Amino acid sequence: MRATLMYRAGDVRVETVADPAVRKPTDAIVRIVRACVCGSDLHPYHGLPEQERGMPMGHEFLGVVEETGPQVSSVRAGDLVVASFSYQDDTCEFCRAGFQTACSHPEAGFFSAAQAELIRVPLADGTLYKLPAGVDTALLPSLLTLADVYGTGYHAAKMAKVTAGDTVAVIGDGAVGLLAVLSARQLGAERIILMGRHKTRTDLGREFGATDVVAERGDEGIALVRELTGGGAHKVLEAVGHRPAYDQAVGVVRGGGVISRVGVPQYEEAPVGFASLFGRNITLNGGPAPVRAYIAELLPAILDGTVDPGKVFDRTVTLDEVPDAYRAMDDREILKALIAF
Amino acid sequence: MRATLMYRAGDVRVETVADPAVRKPTDAIVRIVRACVCGSDLHPYHGLPEQERGMPMGHEFLGVVEETGPQVSSVRAGDLVVASFSYQDDTCEFCRAGFQTACSHPEAGFFSAAQAELIRVPLADGTLYKLPAGVDTALLPSLLTLADVYGTGYHAAKMAKVTAGDTVAVIGDGAVGLLAVLSARQLGAERIILMGRHKTRTDLGREFGATDVVAERGDEGIALVRELTGGGAHKVLEAVGHRPAYDQAVGVVRGGGVISRVGVPQYEEAPVGFASLFGRNITLNGGPAPVRAYIAELLPAILDGTVDPGKVFDRTVTLDEVPDAYRAMDDREILKALIAF
Repeated sequence: MRATLMYRAGDVRVETVADPAVRKPTDAIVRIVRACVCGSDLHPYHGLPEQERGMPMGHEFLGVVEETGPQVSSVRAGDLVVASFSYQDDTCEFCRAGFQTACSHPEAGFFSAAQAELIRVPLADGTLYKLPAGVDTALLPSLLTLADVYGTGYHAAKMAKVTAGDTVAVIGDGAVGLLAVLSARQLGAERIILMGRHKTRTDLGREFGATDVVAERGDEGIALVRELTGGGAHKVLEAVGHRPAYDQAVGVVRGGGVISRVGVPQYEEAPVGFASLFGRNITLNGGPAPVRAYIAELLPAILDGTVDPGKVFDRTVTLDEVPDAYRAMDDREILKALIAF
Repeated sequence: MRATLMYRAGDVRVETVADPAVRKPTDAIVRIVRACVCGSDLHPYHGLPEQERGMPMGHEFLGVVEETGPQVSSVRAGDLVVASFSYQDDTCEFCRAGFQTACSHPEAGFFSAAQAELIRVPLADGTLYKLPAGVDTALLPSLLTLADVYGTGYHAAKMAKVTAGDTVAVIGDGAVGLLAVLSARQLGAERIILMGRHKTRTDLGREFGATDVVAERGDEGIALVRELTGGGAHKVLEAVGHRPAYDQAVGVVRGGGVISRVGVPQYEEAPVGFASLFGRNITLNGGPAPVRAYIAELLPAILDGTVDPGKVFDRTVTLDEVPDAYRAMDDREILKALIAF
């Protein structure tokens, strides 16, 4: 099959590799129909050291089940399925508590070979979600966002306990930030301030439900949001992961409020003491999103057309065009590339 | 009147000072019946630089209202009252949300002159809580804990959302840690592991509901708690405030769990990234306790004898003996000193 491999920062190639095969009785093989490039794929695109063998890329996909191991019972060959970016048993204590990304099964993990024609899915029963047969092809981009970016934006809003009447600040205008806006709106937020400075993206944010856009960053952005909100936002959804975004979150959150992070922190230490979190009883939470837990909850509004999270895809490429899709996302020429097979 | 003043680290004196007077129409003057020395009073006892005029000390008291300003309506002269260690209007947006220590009233603040015969109470209606007339004198120590340490321990458990069946780890065997144990038990925790190494204190912790005591600290203590709990405690109540206690909390918390802090952080930066909080979806919260919000909730079980939080007082002193009470607490000769007038 053809698959995407990264050999070092900036060097992405699509090559012919061996087809994956069922290795465990709980595995499935899926023929990919739609996949995409994630903002987080740009981290190695910037920093990956030279690899002897290419590193397989991609963690978001939907496709058709090709083969299942003998212990797989929830899906079978021919089913259209979407997978969470993590694979898990969905039955352990942590999965049952809604933290599938902390699954205690020894085979649990995260996908990293989904920009390819076929993929091996471990723990298929806990990972794959069967989509309705005969679904409209036009819905596939939105359904693909259930694999990561929509569920991740939703996780930010859920962990923050966004509720009717809340004022929410969303930091970051990437796909996750924009879908955090959509999620906050679905959960009833009254006012949603999107902090981002790329107009085409913040325009989509407004379409998803942002009531205000603040392009300023740092102290200036903090002062503006505090003024707009009369002292800060109840809930802050941080969808960037860099330290200045953390500091911005601390600056714009209201006393007694929540900072919910889904941007993977590119720092380890940060302020949590009296002056930042403690003195004002701020809650800090978030983490890798258990998107498998949210698929069933988010699916109906996609199927009935209430929401269209697939709008975050602003270019469709073939698998062979994936290297250029990385470049275009890195150049901010596009927001997010969809791969159609 | 006589009042406690600190002149520099280690130098506590009881001196004659001017009586306080009503200054604002919302003030009250209270004649103190019981007060006490707090673990947090030991911070200046260790580090206060030389003061030209002595710094008034103490923030926990109950007493009898002596005089009220013309706008005070909820209490009057002769009422027995307990005050929260903070004073607030109890009507602003933050107070209504249960974060009285973030009250937005310009006069809101924290008491610092309660180891004295009389005290001026700003915003008396939002600060003083009227106790039943004719209450048994034997209950006064327990009622005094409502001013700070009981409400603070309870805040730790409430912010952590301790609930039936939870496994809870409490870090610290001071008065707040021990009352966090009691609070966790009241909220239904199934297993409560107290991390502390002073046997007389941890014995009281067992009486308050601790099911296990771990005296080891650092990596050894973490390994023991992780083993006892099969991977960590759902909720960790941190009642110390020093950085090693934070690290211990991160070490013993279970994936998807909560670290709730009420020990005032003596650090500003700490790990919050992928390896500590984010990767396992840990929630970090807590802060200065809005104890005013909890008095009504905690009072009945004191009055009917179900709980006896006043057991944290293991020595009773007169006002003139307060300097020696500081010394005895600092030497860990006693846990907490009660001042009887």
